[in-house]
Amino acid sequence: MTDLLYLEDLYPGQTFISGSETITEADILAFATQFDPQPFHLDHEAGKASIFGGLAASGWHTAALTMRLNVSSGPKFAAGIIGGGGEITWPAPTRPGDILHVEYEILEITPSRSKPDRGMILLQCRTVNQTGATLQLAKMKLIVPRRPA
Amino acid sequence: MTDLLYLEDLYPGQTFISGSETITEADILAFATQFDPQPFHLDHEAGKASIFGGLAASGWHTAALTMRLNVSSGPKFAAGIIGGGGEITWPAPTRPGDILHVEYEILEITPSRSKPDRGMILLQCRTVNQTGATLQLAKMKLIVPRRPA
Repeated sequence: MTDLLYLEDLYPGQTFISGSETITEADILAFATQFDPQPFHLDHEAGKASIFGGLAASGWHTAALTMRLNVSSGPKFAAGIIGGGGEITWPAPTRPGDILHVEYEILEITPSRSKPDRGMILLQCRTVNQTGATLQLAKMKLIVPRRPA
Repeated sequence: MTDLLYLEDLYPGQTFISGSETITEADILAFATQFDPQPFHLDHEAGKASIFGGLAASGWHTAALTMRLNVSSGPKFAAGIIGGGGEITWPAPTRPGDILHVEYEILEITPSRSKPDRGMILLQCRTVNQTGATLQLAKMKLIVPRRPA
């Protein structure tokens, strides 16, 4: 088991990398059917006719899969991954057969003024496929506890 | 069927409202098991011991459910809901039994300089529960086509 990470263990510029996972066409169709049933997420021809130029996963599917990688093999922050929010963009579509991993970089660390037992970090999570294309870029604010005395 | 919305039909300050949907404990556990298997999303006791103070849905589940409401009963933009990205925060946790709907407001409209057939809008999507609490606030950039001549 990996040691848990507390605020004291982190520094700006620190990087981590997740394991990888393949997204299948069946995965894409199942997620889209449940949460984002738009034609370009459900049908090859509709995908080709769209701005995506082919069947593409819902951006929220890419986000959910990124979260799964965060939990399974991302940095192990002591209180888990509790996001206050952030910015998210999807520079390129996620396609059937893509193999995704996540590259992390700590951008900022801000100790809490009111709560001395914790701080906030700004974590960049870049979701990358097997060709090196960035499928999602997220900058998320996370609460990280200090190491107990 | 609702008429499709083109860029010419939209103006800053314009509002829309979605239908509503209940999120069950089973829904929360199923999504968390698949995409965000952290204890506070899977177990009441772990939820109580966490910053959430009780079992809470993954923020990405709230995001996915918001997307389902967008597609089923949000504003019907002509090319569908194609998000370039945006900002997202989760001001309050989503709980079992919450009844969610989405309140939309168009914040900005920016015609494309390079592509005369479309523009970009900044759409605020506020996901609200039955008590009026804001569970998610998203400001998303969407591509919207102009009405064909």
